[in-house]
Amino acid sequence: MSSELRGERNRYRATVEYDGSDYYGFQIQADQPTIQGALEQALADTAGEAVRVAGAGRTDTGVHALGQVIGFRLAWRHSLDDLQRALNARLPEGIVIRELAPAEEGFHPRFSARSRVYRYTVLNQPLRSPLARRFAHQLAGSLDLLAMNAAAASLLGGHDFATFGNPPQGENTVREVMRAVWTQAGNTFFFDIEANAFLRRMVRTVVSALLLIGQGGMEAESMAALLAARDRSQAPPPAPACGLCLMQVKY
Amino acid sequence: MSSELRGERNRYRATVEYDGSDYYGFQIQADQPTIQGALEQALADTAGEAVRVAGAGRTDTGVHALGQVIGFRLAWRHSLDDLQRALNARLPEGIVIRELAPAEEGFHPRFSARSRVYRYTVLNQPLRSPLARRFAHQLAGSLDLLAMNAAAASLLGGHDFATFGNPPQGENTVREVMRAVWTQAGNTFFFDIEANAFLRRMVRTVVSALLLIGQGGMEAESMAALLAARDRSQAPPPAPACGLCLMQVKY
Repeated sequence: MSSELRGERNRYRATVEYDGSDYYGFQIQADQPTIQGALEQALADTAGEAVRVAGAGRTDTGVHALGQVIGFRLAWRHSLDDLQRALNARLPEGIVIRELAPAEEGFHPRFSARSRVYRYTVLNQPLRSPLARRFAHQLAGSLDLLAMNAAAASLLGGHDFATFGNPPQGENTVREVMRAVWTQAGNTFFFDIEANAFLRRMVRTVVSALLLIGQGGMEAESMAALLAARDRSQAPPPAPACGLCLMQVKY
Repeated sequence: MSSELRGERNRYRATVEYDGSDYYGFQIQADQPTIQGALEQALADTAGEAVRVAGAGRTDTGVHALGQVIGFRLAWRHSLDDLQRALNARLPEGIVIRELAPAEEGFHPRFSARSRVYRYTVLNQPLRSPLARRFAHQLAGSLDLLAMNAAAASLLGGHDFATFGNPPQGENTVREVMRAVWTQAGNTFFFDIEANAFLRRMVRTVVSALLLIGQGGMEAESMAALLAARDRSQAPPPAPACGLCLMQVKY
């Protein structure tokens, strides 16, 4: 008798895209719409039983994802394609399962991840833009791309990021950054950053400091000094959530 | 005594960007949110009197604009910049005045326009996309770019577009198309069309027919036959509004 006929639960992993604008972040909360909550609801409606979802990254309120990765266990007798279709039919229009696959034994979306890739988008113009407002942070004044990239380079490698974010309870604050670079296309600036893991608010706080540098409000060299301070109170407030997107999780 | 001190109204023209997703089109309606309604409200709040707004194009429910042009008359004692700031501060986040200028005598946003430029965006992939859903029509299956462009070329020049749209009461249905071309960037297809003016639903109905051709459901040559038929009932239903954006109005 196969595991499916016995109703045994199989492990799955899925890549999820979402527009975070209307959600209170990834992690489930009572009485607030969350990405995890919507995914677990769609799974429960599909499977007829409660299903717990684990995510690779707990994106904040208003943060988006093109490639969030989740894991869950489910008893499902039909094909993988059928499961993906059933879930997408039940998910709200702001969330979609892009890929679905069986997960290997021992796979955990968070603990198995080697690195995460985030992108932050800045629309550099004097006026707010109705067409871009959900996915870009609009900022007036000129930005110095070279200074921002010089400062971003000081993030590369292993560093204690205590200045830039809050660790999950009890964890240390050392993270390893493999990539941190700004690119520009017209009046749109993209900041792409990859690290083994991130502290809470880390990307948005790093972006905030780099934008200060880009605007001439701080020297590029002060990025290294901020890092060395290991003092949360020295960092500027995080840049707005709307500009941030979890692009990819690598395993 | 200057006209401003007498409280006389001056003519203005403005370029307006909006996310049409949450509006029942441009034209004002009782008890429904409309772009014109929101603009007139912001003007009334700013000027302390009722102000009527005329628009270059009456975009449908859910259609966006990067470059809608409007005209209005207003008694305003302060600078143009102050007026733009005051209006943008009162407009909802889905609407912004990008440019504001004095309008020449006799200027009318609709009747003075030489041409309008629209862009229709298609996201060609099997799954809906939460990040693109507000500004692109998602369509599965492959699209034949060459066939769509061959068919689009038959629209160029002056034609009776009675098959593809409804004229305002009593007007004729002949329009002149100066540009009609598809381009592709990855899995995103853009259709750019410029004409002296458009019938209601014309762009979306043309797009719908061209997508049928791109999917192989119709020959490229049938576009000319549809045009020649001058019969509204022969056209496919219009493509979804979310993909359409009024890019520019030329004077």
